[in-house]
Amino acid sequence: MEGASLLLLVLDLTGTFVFALNGGLTAMRAARLDIVGVITLGMITALGGGIIRDTLIDDLPPATFQDWRYLAVAAGGALIAFAFSQHLTRLAVPIELLDAVGLSVFAVTGAGKAMTFGLGPVQAIILGAITAVGGGTLRDVMIGRVPSVMREGLYAIPAIVGAGITVGCILLGFHGLAAAFAAAAACFLIRLLGVYFKLNAPRPRATTGPSDPV
Amino acid sequence: MEGASLLLLVLDLTGTFVFALNGGLTAMRAARLDIVGVITLGMITALGGGIIRDTLIDDLPPATFQDWRYLAVAAGGALIAFAFSQHLTRLAVPIELLDAVGLSVFAVTGAGKAMTFGLGPVQAIILGAITAVGGGTLRDVMIGRVPSVMREGLYAIPAIVGAGITVGCILLGFHGLAAAFAAAAACFLIRLLGVYFKLNAPRPRATTGPSDPV
Amino acid sequence: MEGASLLLLVLDLTGTFVFALNGGLTAMRAARLDIVGVITLGMITALGGGIIRDTLIDDLPPATFQDWRYLAVAAGGALIAFAFSQHLTRLAVPIELLDAVGLSVFAVTGAGKAMTFGLGPVQAIILGAITAVGGGTLRDVMIGRVPSVMREGLYAIPAIVGAGITVGCILLGFHGLAAAFAAAAACFLIRLLGVYFKLNAPRPRATTGPSDPV
Repeated sequence: MEGASLLLLVLDLTGTFVFALNGGLTAMRAARLDIVGVITLGMITALGGGIIRDTLIDDLPPATFQDWRYLAVAAGGALIAFAFSQHLTRLAVPIELLDAVGLSVFAVTGAGKAMTFGLGPVQAIILGAITAVGGGTLRDVMIGRVPSVMREGLYAIPAIVGAGITVGCILLGFHGLAAAFAAAAACFLIRLLGVYFKLNAPRPRATTGPSDPV
Repeated sequence: MEGASLLLLVLDLTGTFVFALNGGLTAMRAARLDIVGVITLGMITALGGGIIRDTLIDDLPPATFQDWRYLAVAAGGALIAFAFSQHLTRLAVPIELLDAVGLSVFAVTGAGKAMTFGLGPVQAIILGAITAVGGGTLRDVMIGRVPSVMREGLYAIPAIVGAGITVGCILLGFHGLAAAFAAAAACFLIRLLGVYFKLNAPRPRATTGPSDPV
Repeated sequence: MEGASLLLLVLDLTGTFVFALNGGLTAMRAARLDIVGVITLGMITALGGGIIRDTLIDDLPPATFQDWRYLAVAAGGALIAFAFSQHLTRLAVPIELLDAVGLSVFAVTGAGKAMTFGLGPVQAIILGAITAVGGGTLRDVMIGRVPSVMREGLYAIPAIVGAGITVGCILLGFHGLAAAFAAAAACFLIRLLGVYFKLNAPRPRATTGPSDPV
């Protein structure tokens, strides 16, 4: 169990790092930012989802905000994005893979924490998804973009599946790390399938016709 | 009293449903969203004001987030907006009317809850208005629009009047549902007059001159 | 000590007033708002940083939201911005100076409050900076602008310095008002130097080349 817990921590910190890296890079591409902006947005991308979750379940101050390891790893990821943005384009594939790891781990740990704090199963699934996609949503809103999670790709749906499996396992009495890894693996696979086949969530019928002049 | 409490619950759920419907429709018109985005924005429009209020008065987890009926009704309204957006344009007038019902009920229940939690009268009026207009404000910010409540129409002002009458009645010792309905009716009427006569809140003098190049 | 505490309160209220004034003016220049929008954005600019800080350190309801003096001073500043926007352009220099006072006082009191609530030194520095720049960030996000604090000028960096000196003094055992004023003075001076010499925080290398088509 010790080793497995350590593995979960390492995966969680890996997700935090890659979210910060990815958040900083995305923000820099979409808006002219200085170092303050890049670090702020990288940290918000990495920690924002957990902060929203902890506010909603009343675990304040937020856990990731209190743990210096998460703050340091998030700041480090954002700083690397700032310093090496031009070189990191070559690492697009491994960054995408690690981002899917972060998505999966955050969805599972977020849903599990919500159950631990006594919230209902539906709320726990929503909170798992918020943990996974909340940071990226805040990042996009702060740079004036409609959040990509609400527009394209499969990003929230694998998170909801991972959180759902987590909640189902807990309700059925499987509390162990095996269940957590199975749930995270399902989220990870759906996310990768979505990236590889460029899948999108269904869109309203209206927007498949001629574009409205917004 | 039983029947009146039930009536208030039904009105509150009606407001939640119509806010979700309206939020989803507005979001779809202003931005290209997939089903995840429409449901997210519908639910945020319906539940966001109450969540901000409950965070500020320290009633976490937020009440509407904990009650599955509010979650289900909000998700249902957003789903209907997603599925039937083209047909719902014909229902613009009843949707506008029910939206005014939601505005009125949220302003009154929000201000009343803030008083119950011991906040001062000015804060309770602000919190009533936040409950009523907070969700729509979040929706607009998330799709990159300056919130309509800050630009045009009479939307916050009837909410402030409704919340103000609620707080006044409580201070004067009228706690009953009659006071709540009177306050909601005042809000509702001002809102409808504003819609019918296309009234706007005062604008700064500068912006009535030739438009500045923003 | 009495006089010094009073001085700190007066400076804090001065900062609140000028942040509301400045927030209302900035918002009016960047977006067409009515009186509801100007007052909302002025108050959010003045009180938003403290509200985020108090949420994160779990001091809810937020202090500035509970104290009617802060609410009244913030609303007054926003109203003056609404009524006299055309005349206030002549006062740009004193407004800029008083805004720097607000930045300094908020950074110092924010960091000090976080330490009082038992947060770690790094968190306290971040929270001091959030107190100082959070309101302006919320204002910009709400009117659809990339927050100016993340793009240009020296605004967050002096706040971080002021908060850092505050935390350092507390860790070294200097709790008094002299330390607070020294920290605020350092923040104030760096801010003024930044304004005077038009200094910017470092920008990513990529964006110094030809502009990317955003």
